[in-house]
Amino acid sequence: METQLVLPKYSKTVVLKFVFGQSDGGVRFIGQRVVVGGWVKSSRAVSKDPVTAAPDAGVHKDVTCVEILQSRFPFFRSILKVLGGAGQQIRDKLDTDLPMPPQLTGAILQVSDGSCVANLQVVVDSSLAPPGRIMPIGTCILAEGILQQPSTQGKQIIELKAEKILHIGTVDQDRYPLSKRRLPMANLRDSAHFRQRTTTVASVMRIRSALTQATHTFFQENGFLFVQVPIITSTDCEGASENFQVTTLSGKGKIENQSTADDAGGVELEVMKVSIEEKTKQVEELKRTDSNKEALAAAIQDLKKTTELVSQLEAKEKAKSGKPTSSGNKDKVSEDFFSCQTFLTVSGCLHLESYACALGKVYSFGPRFRANKIESRKSLSEAWMVELQMAFSEIEDAVDCADDFLKFICKWILENSTEDLKFLSKRIDNTIVDRLQLIATGVVEYISYTEAIEFLNEVTEKQFETKVEWGVSLSEEHESYLADEIYKKPVIMYNHPKEIKPFYTRLNDDEKTVAAFDVIVPKVGTLIRGSQNEERFNVLSTRITEMGLAKEQYEWYLDLRRHGTAKCSGFTFLFDSLVLYATGLDDVRDAVPFPRSFGKANN
Amino acid sequence: METQLVLPKYSKTVVLKFVFGQSDGGVRFIGQRVVVGGWVKSSRAVSKDPVTAAPDAGVHKDVTCVEILQSRFPFFRSILKVLGGAGQQIRDKLDTDLPMPPQLTGAILQVSDGSCVANLQVVVDSSLAPPGRIMPIGTCILAEGILQQPSTQGKQIIELKAEKILHIGTVDQDRYPLSKRRLPMANLRDSAHFRQRTTTVASVMRIRSALTQATHTFFQENGFLFVQVPIITSTDCEGASENFQVTTLSGKGKIENQSTADDAGGVELEVMKVSIEEKTKQVEELKRTDSNKEALAAAIQDLKKTTELVSQLEAKEKAKSGKPTSSGNKDKVSEDFFSCQTFLTVSGCLHLESYACALGKVYSFGPRFRANKIESRKSLSEAWMVELQMAFSEIEDAVDCADDFLKFICKWILENSTEDLKFLSKRIDNTIVDRLQLIATGVVEYISYTEAIEFLNEVTEKQFETKVEWGVSLSEEHESYLADEIYKKPVIMYNHPKEIKPFYTRLNDDEKTVAAFDVIVPKVGTLIRGSQNEERFNVLSTRITEMGLAKEQYEWYLDLRRHGTAKCSGFTFLFDSLVLYATGLDDVRDAVPFPRSFGKANN
Repeated sequence: METQLVLPKYSKTVVLKFVFGQSDGGVRFIGQRVVVGGWVKSSRAVSKDPVTAAPDAGVHKDVTCVEILQSRFPFFRSILKVLGGAGQQIRDKLDTDLPMPPQLTGAILQVSDGSCVANLQVVVDSSLAPPGRIMPIGTCILAEGILQQPSTQGKQIIELKAEKILHIGTVDQDRYPLSKRRLPMANLRDSAHFRQRTTTVASVMRIRSALTQATHTFFQENGFLFVQVPIITSTDCEGASENFQVTTLSGKGKIENQSTADDAGGVELEVMKVSIEEKTKQVEELKRTDSNKEALAAAIQDLKKTTELVSQLEAKEKAKSGKPTSSGNKDKVSEDFFSCQTFLTVSGCLHLESYACALGKVYSFGPRFRANKIESRKSLSEAWMVELQMAFSEIEDAVDCADDFLKFICKWILENSTEDLKFLSKRIDNTIVDRLQLIATGVVEYISYTEAIEFLNEVTEKQFETKVEWGVSLSEEHESYLADEIYKKPVIMYNHPKEIKPFYTRLNDDEKTVAAFDVIVPKVGTLIRGSQNEERFNVLSTRITEMGLAKEQYEWYLDLRRHGTAKCSGFTFLFDSLVLYATGLDDVRDAVPFPRSFGKANN
Repeated sequence: METQLVLPKYSKTVVLKFVFGQSDGGVRFIGQRVVVGGWVKSSRAVSKDPVTAAPDAGVHKDVTCVEILQSRFPFFRSILKVLGGAGQQIRDKLDTDLPMPPQLTGAILQVSDGSCVANLQVVVDSSLAPPGRIMPIGTCILAEGILQQPSTQGKQIIELKAEKILHIGTVDQDRYPLSKRRLPMANLRDSAHFRQRTTTVASVMRIRSALTQATHTFFQENGFLFVQVPIITSTDCEGASENFQVTTLSGKGKIENQSTADDAGGVELEVMKVSIEEKTKQVEELKRTDSNKEALAAAIQDLKKTTELVSQLEAKEKAKSGKPTSSGNKDKVSEDFFSCQTFLTVSGCLHLESYACALGKVYSFGPRFRANKIESRKSLSEAWMVELQMAFSEIEDAVDCADDFLKFICKWILENSTEDLKFLSKRIDNTIVDRLQLIATGVVEYISYTEAIEFLNEVTEKQFETKVEWGVSLSEEHESYLADEIYKKPVIMYNHPKEIKPFYTRLNDDEKTVAAFDVIVPKVGTLIRGSQNEERFNVLSTRITEMGLAKEQYEWYLDLRRHGTAKCSGFTFLFDSLVLYATGLDDVRDAVPFPRSFGKANN
């Protein structure tokens, strides 16, 4: 059965996922001419016997690229080392022009185009390109050739016999951070622009993309409208968050000078104070020695001036250490780009709710920001969240939706990312498929916050580091104990104390708890935080006051309660945590394309 | 034909879009019991005759809510006006408790749930709720009842006869910004949390959501992976952009004090300089008058000290006006959250390309930021962009993709947003459907930048405000002339001078132009900016130097060329401008949920 290859649009290259994705693994395409582009994942030199189209024809000697270069051109290597980066061109030229040692007749490359886990074996005769030039890990190659049965023994069922090399993107092996194979994830983090070329990170990012697609599909199938909430905001959506400020005011120079000026102020004052003492002595001396009147008058005049200056300086120093006057501050903020203080949003919930209170069911999906000065494997400064808000809906509705949503996306990944899950099961964590199935097909456990506290207080078999007490948030160890050890499935905890939830969460009739819920899953903990929102103007207004928040910031949100208030519920879904859940990774910084965390924003 | 209503999930309310979306406009549901929730768009009081289920049975007198309240309760109204906002509760109570005037027996409400353009007519007997309480525009109502044939003459083909009112969210009419109907768009901008309750803005936002959905669908159908590029970045992706800084350093107080300290520095210096003159005179006077040695020595010592202090102050003032020393600046930046200067991203292209150079075809969709201090109907500080990058692809591929993409989303909107387009054609611009069809089914015009300049230079029938010259960007008037007046269809302009395109655009063989293209469409101008990227290390490195950019910032991007470079192309799609194109709006601030522009970030 031969299928004509459908060439992908917008490129001359055939996508490997399409080739390997056929039921026969691409065997049907044997004999066809294609262009393939990708990066070398591993390579072998072919020595002695020329590579032929017949399988198992040649006896291949495994030689790595590094071995070739180091053993055969030691003199040139040492010269190039001295030349460093500038030697790149010369090195390329040498690689091209130098006659290949007679025993190297070609190279066998395992090439990935990033579309799937599998590599294509590409056989390149040395007449097309010097093996030493194309063999280093990370080399980019664009080759035209014929798909054929493999010429070597191995797991490949097809290979490309190159007939033309259209492009080579060489690698500077000394500087390329991925020259070594199987680097630990933590080391790869510093190469956020390269690590996606590893099979593991590529798999993670394909799963991340599939989860994104699943998210949009779920909400659109269920009639949600997508609303782009703002990143720059003048509202602190959760009250008292650690915010990033957005400004066009603080230029480099200004920040630096301010510091010098501050320091200098103190020094001057000390010098002047000493000066006053001396001048006082001088005046007394002039008086005592009965010197001429003019000199005395001048000295007195000078003392007076210096004293005035000192009191001016003292007042200024005092102002510095104290709080700024509100009018002065307002003036300065009014010079900023937006004429007010603005932050990176910590949550789009409030903005989104104003759309729910007009359009019904709405969702958003984007980065949210927290300037928490901690380094942790669960914390990002820029984290991706899915948020949704539904009008005419109560807490049970939001819980149902959260449950359906989780089931939907886990099922989606199981069906659409089979190869990536298989690879990550082998490489990272062999329980990921079971864990996804646990959510996709399983049931959840419901437990109220109060029940959870009572339960945890009775635990004797385990010692917790932090004490469990009604009124405080459960810590990671408690959540993990419930989800991983006791229930071994997703736990939905509800009715939290009002103090530990945002001000807009709806107050229950007991006036102590609020209509909130958390979905806690094994391995990663809290995945979803949801609530019914407070639709009663007076109760909401009181809550804002109670929590000591700056009410003027929330006037627009209170407007939603003043005019045509509706019951609303919704939730926030911690997208990055789901990537951990689905891939088996332990650190959220490995699950995000360009992680931002305390002290780290490299590019 | 009767269809059982499928109740929507996650709410008890039926979605109006589903009801009206039936081929018979919902007539099939007559007789069924439903719960409907929404906001009152207009209302009429029913007087004298009770509302009955039979059509055209009652003789209705049109009375608006405001008329009722003002004519019937003048005394209470004036009291409530005095009470202001605090009167809300009392007013609600009055509305509830006051006996209705005998002639008002109910209300007919036009209710929207935001899911579609059409309103549902809801008939509420005064025994269920006081008409004056539910009739104001913007009132939220949740009602259970039976769908029936309309009881009034009009365009409705079904209505809801309410049997139970489950919730009323009243409106404080004096303060509700939408109490007046048909407010100009510019006035609505100040109520970003409410304006989506108007039929026009709701339509625009539904179209925006549909365009988002179309975007994701196109890229996913064509094998693109979604990559979340960072918002916080230490790289200026286009070089020399007007950036927003992201910081946790600049507290309110510090900014204010800095200004005072700066000013004070100059004043002190002047005072001290005067003081030196006087002290010099004093010393000379002491010498001249042959005064005692101790007094003279003290005066000389004092002069010396003051002179030293002045030269210290002068050095400080000089540093202030000049550039800061790099070491001092570095120290301060190192205290910031990320230990380096960070900005809001102006473009995700570079980050995205590092993923293309590993995974093949990738796209992103998110806000990008520019701190341009201008107010314009085309400019936003936070604008939404679709960006894509494809490895092994050249400029022609990117142009093909841009063309297909535009056709796809315009076709999508024509097929999926029929009702909203119909409404906006009537309300805003009756050419939007033609315009969308122009792209969806039409051809584009190709013209090189050089040809365009030559052509525009020969134009005599029109006077341009700015001169056309090779080497400068075309201004809006030139683009508009080409797309709106000459070609009357999308124009793809290519091969721009290298000076007017970003540093990473690939240099053509003439070494003057680059492999860039813009898609310019009638009405909104540039919609897409694309390019093939410079894959040659040396050329890229030279371009960065030529343009005077800070090279160290781009080292990571240069790495992509050092190690396994591939030909890449892609484009940036100005999403908000497409919303203008598709809706007929003129100002981009009306096309974004929460617009951010110079001086405006209200919530």
